[in-house]
Amino acid sequence: MLVIGELINGMFKDVAKAIQNKESDIIQHLAEEQVNAGAKALDINIGPYSKDPKADMKWLVESIQKVVNVSLCIDSPRADVIEEGLKVAKFRTIINSTSADDEEMDEIFTLAKKYKAQVIGLAMDKSGVPNDKSKRVELAAKIIAKAMDFGIATEDLYLDPILLPINVGQDQEKAIIESIRDFRQLCNPAPNTIVGLSNISQGTKARSILNRTFLAMAMANGLTAAILDPLDRDLMDALITAELILNKNIYCESFLEAYRKK
Amino acid sequence: MLVIGELINGMFKDVAKAIQNKESDIIQHLAEEQVNAGAKALDINIGPYSKDPKADMKWLVESIQKVVNVSLCIDSPRADVIEEGLKVAKFRTIINSTSADDEEMDEIFTLAKKYKAQVIGLAMDKSGVPNDKSKRVELAAKIIAKAMDFGIATEDLYLDPILLPINVGQDQEKAIIESIRDFRQLCNPAPNTIVGLSNISQGTKARSILNRTFLAMAMANGLTAAILDPLDRDLMDALITAELILNKNIYCESFLEAYRKK
Repeated sequence: MLVIGELINGMFKDVAKAIQNKESDIIQHLAEEQVNAGAKALDINIGPYSKDPKADMKWLVESIQKVVNVSLCIDSPRADVIEEGLKVAKFRTIINSTSADDEEMDEIFTLAKKYKAQVIGLAMDKSGVPNDKSKRVELAAKIIAKAMDFGIATEDLYLDPILLPINVGQDQEKAIIESIRDFRQLCNPAPNTIVGLSNISQGTKARSILNRTFLAMAMANGLTAAILDPLDRDLMDALITAELILNKNIYCESFLEAYRKK
Repeated sequence: MLVIGELINGMFKDVAKAIQNKESDIIQHLAEEQVNAGAKALDINIGPYSKDPKADMKWLVESIQKVVNVSLCIDSPRADVIEEGLKVAKFRTIINSTSADDEEMDEIFTLAKKYKAQVIGLAMDKSGVPNDKSKRVELAAKIIAKAMDFGIATEDLYLDPILLPINVGQDQEKAIIESIRDFRQLCNPAPNTIVGLSNISQGTKARSILNRTFLAMAMANGLTAAILDPLDRDLMDALITAELILNKNIYCESFLEAYRKK
């Protein structure tokens, strides 16, 4: 399970302010905290308030790389901003993201090819987020086919079914879990699968239990990566336990501590 | 999700003592506590220490029925002891259990037919507990076929893949989860599926998190019933949340409290 820390995101006001004021210590502290808590990669997003997105992305990547040695998941709606990050990234990067629209895929996969990056592919297109499983699977298959055209290995794709908040998309959650299972069967080697986990609990009060319960359910159906808050200890406990049940780590009496020490 | 309370079991010393001394208040308190915590049925087992199993089973059923109005899951390795319970049960009963051995199935399904009871069928036989998914599914199919011979509806079966403790059967847990999914697809209407949840954490220190994480994973793959400890509040929270994610209850902000009040 690839744990991608979600906390360096300009959607959060304190992060947006740190980016604007170039307070690298704040960003670096967030990076270190997440890696110490078990994140193996960090999602980074300069947010919607940046006045100079390209310069801010470059600064963000460079600041973080001074303190942690993990992959970055470069998250922006703009390909030119993503490329600024890719140019200075030290490790193999995940591009977050492309939809299944041809133009966007052409642009993002061209970047991925140029920088040997991995790609998150969202099961949505110009017509929006699908209402059912079959449309999600159809769009995922379209992303895989396009990646193949570019010579990108299927295991370098992270297919995202688009996790909806439970307070607006409750009737979709089961289909989303089933989509994850189906995505894994679309090709061999299987693509990775990913969700932005906090989405499910957006706007709700019981955030942590929704996040961790969904995570276990999705992992039992083939989820291989998640963008999440690694500082939520209950969530990480659920993740470690689900990995144990799936036989990814060897059982010992103190398996939670043993995983954390690793 | 059918929650079957596990606490009235003569394997526990205080329960064995209460049965021996006919202390009905102790048993009745355990019954009420479990029902108040969300159990919709109660597993009852007189345990291995009883000197008069048939009389003890009858007493147990009658004592419990004085205080709660729920189905009982009558749990004994002996068919004659089960029948003593069935004779006096007020509500529709679940027989716990038969293996896939023909002789045992003949005996248990005869009882089920006579008393209109439901049956837990264990995916094991004389050769023991299977080591893989395909043997589990084969034995489940055998149980379904036999139930059909007896004219027992498939939805009155609870198929149990035999949950192994993680400290001895870690490499089987994923196959067990997948078996649950496959059991549901063996016939239409689908059979119920069940686990003795606490089995997974037997002999471990981190019992509750193993139980609740496995439960969410299994529910995401078609588990419809579990024998569990309803007094474990974290476990019940996970169960309620998993049901919410599977769209079995309508979301509201205080969904945990709302479910409990229901």
